[in-house]
Amino acid sequence: MRLSPSQNAQLAMLVEVGTSPKPGNVGPNQEFEDTSYHQFQASAVGAGPGLVDAEEGSPVGEAFYRAVEGSTLHAGGNTHFGSLLLLVPLVRAAGDQGVDSVDDVLRSTTVDDASLFYSAFQLTDVRLLDDFPQGLPDASSGDAPRQVRERGLSLYDVMEASADVDDVAREWATGFERTFETAETLGGFSETADTNEAVARTFLDMLRRHPDSHVAKRHGEHVAEDVTSMAGELDVISLNRRLRSDGINPGATADVLCAACFVALETGRMEV
Amino acid sequence: MRLSPSQNAQLAMLVEVGTSPKPGNVGPNQEFEDTSYHQFQASAVGAGPGLVDAEEGSPVGEAFYRAVEGSTLHAGGNTHFGSLLLLVPLVRAAGDQGVDSVDDVLRSTTVDDASLFYSAFQLTDVRLLDDFPQGLPDASSGDAPRQVRERGLSLYDVMEASADVDDVAREWATGFERTFETAETLGGFSETADTNEAVARTFLDMLRRHPDSHVAKRHGEHVAEDVTSMAGELDVISLNRRLRSDGINPGATADVLCAACFVALETGRMEV
Repeated sequence: MRLSPSQNAQLAMLVEVGTSPKPGNVGPNQEFEDTSYHQFQASAVGAGPGLVDAEEGSPVGEAFYRAVEGSTLHAGGNTHFGSLLLLVPLVRAAGDQGVDSVDDVLRSTTVDDASLFYSAFQLTDVRLLDDFPQGLPDASSGDAPRQVRERGLSLYDVMEASADVDDVAREWATGFERTFETAETLGGFSETADTNEAVARTFLDMLRRHPDSHVAKRHGEHVAEDVTSMAGELDVISLNRRLRSDGINPGATADVLCAACFVALETGRMEV
Repeated sequence: MRLSPSQNAQLAMLVEVGTSPKPGNVGPNQEFEDTSYHQFQASAVGAGPGLVDAEEGSPVGEAFYRAVEGSTLHAGGNTHFGSLLLLVPLVRAAGDQGVDSVDDVLRSTTVDDASLFYSAFQLTDVRLLDDFPQGLPDASSGDAPRQVRERGLSLYDVMEASADVDDVAREWATGFERTFETAETLGGFSETADTNEAVARTFLDMLRRHPDSHVAKRHGEHVAEDVTSMAGELDVISLNRRLRSDGINPGATADVLCAACFVALETGRMEV
């Protein structure tokens, strides 16, 4: 007996946010002004039914919408929108042919999936996520679900068009390349370290290698690149203090880490 | 739309263990030698299906067995056995007439429920829980489920007979008196404090008022009483250091706190 794919996804959300230190992110005893650690826990719990739908083969858009809806039943800001955009297709693949078949799931998404993705936006704190590439519907507009239908865009099309400016979309466009690589990193650290240490070290490794797209959107690309350098130079406590005082949250890196935790749990590379 | 009773129970488990500081307990960055914080998270996730069964009206023994089974799918020691023994009847009541009707759920338990309770013991790290009152079957014996049938004991009978020596059993025997009182305390603190602070302050308040039965079983009653005094005298950091260095875990207090978090979430006294 083992945890199901939807349960492993929920656990990945909890392990990712519950690991400390993770400089700049919400975590235990490290809250944002508008969002607490316990609200991230409530978000992971509430996403459960949507993740079960994905495991049982529901269309990606429907499962994603339901998961996001459940993840917003708390008083805080955006918690798991990006993470769920990665987890839902992974869980759907895991419930069917296995996580390695996720690319088939992505490429078979439809206009309906894209429309529901835009509808899900309306449920969240869109301020964090409103910087969409030119040529795509404006996600903060209530009219976006209709526009996406008019233009005949699938969810895969939307993600592919956003890949250059969004780390989550980039995973869709590359068959979850960085997610799978990061799951290998987690597996490597897990051979000698406990779960918390393995996840925390993997996060630092990711920060050093790749500028965070969420930071780039909010603060500019040069700031995202500065974070990459700082992650290589500063100790973890100084890095955290610096990011917190500047209001910098490497949130996209956390999303990809969350997806990688799921893959590592689901494939046995990491065991809790 | 709101979280369902089974989801609120899962959230209560996560909020209880994720709150810090809670002197002597497992928490973020505070692990036991045999059990990590992330294993408590996995336990809360795995208990989900059993809690859903309880919400949908399954017999208490069946739902409890399934919840315990799911809560042991990790490599650590006992995590939520005591908490689930409180949460399962509460969730069953919440899914039917509301938490105030929990006493009816307790009193209508049967010999089957008692037998499954003893079977669930076999799934856990029984070293922590093997000190049962005279007159009851020895929980560490594989023969206990048969013995309980032979003697015709309901789960309520078993709990009532253990009430003097076990804080969890005492809740069964008293209609969850301390659980409901503690939910009021949580509600009071929540009026001015955030979730983490409200739960942490409530835990200290509980420690000061009532010697922990888990500590009494492991270390003797005088030690449990010493903890009560220390909780009134020491600051929280010193108290934690002292409990950790002496290997003292007020685990029964945490179980009742977890149940109180559920009641406070379910009744709106505490909002996340």
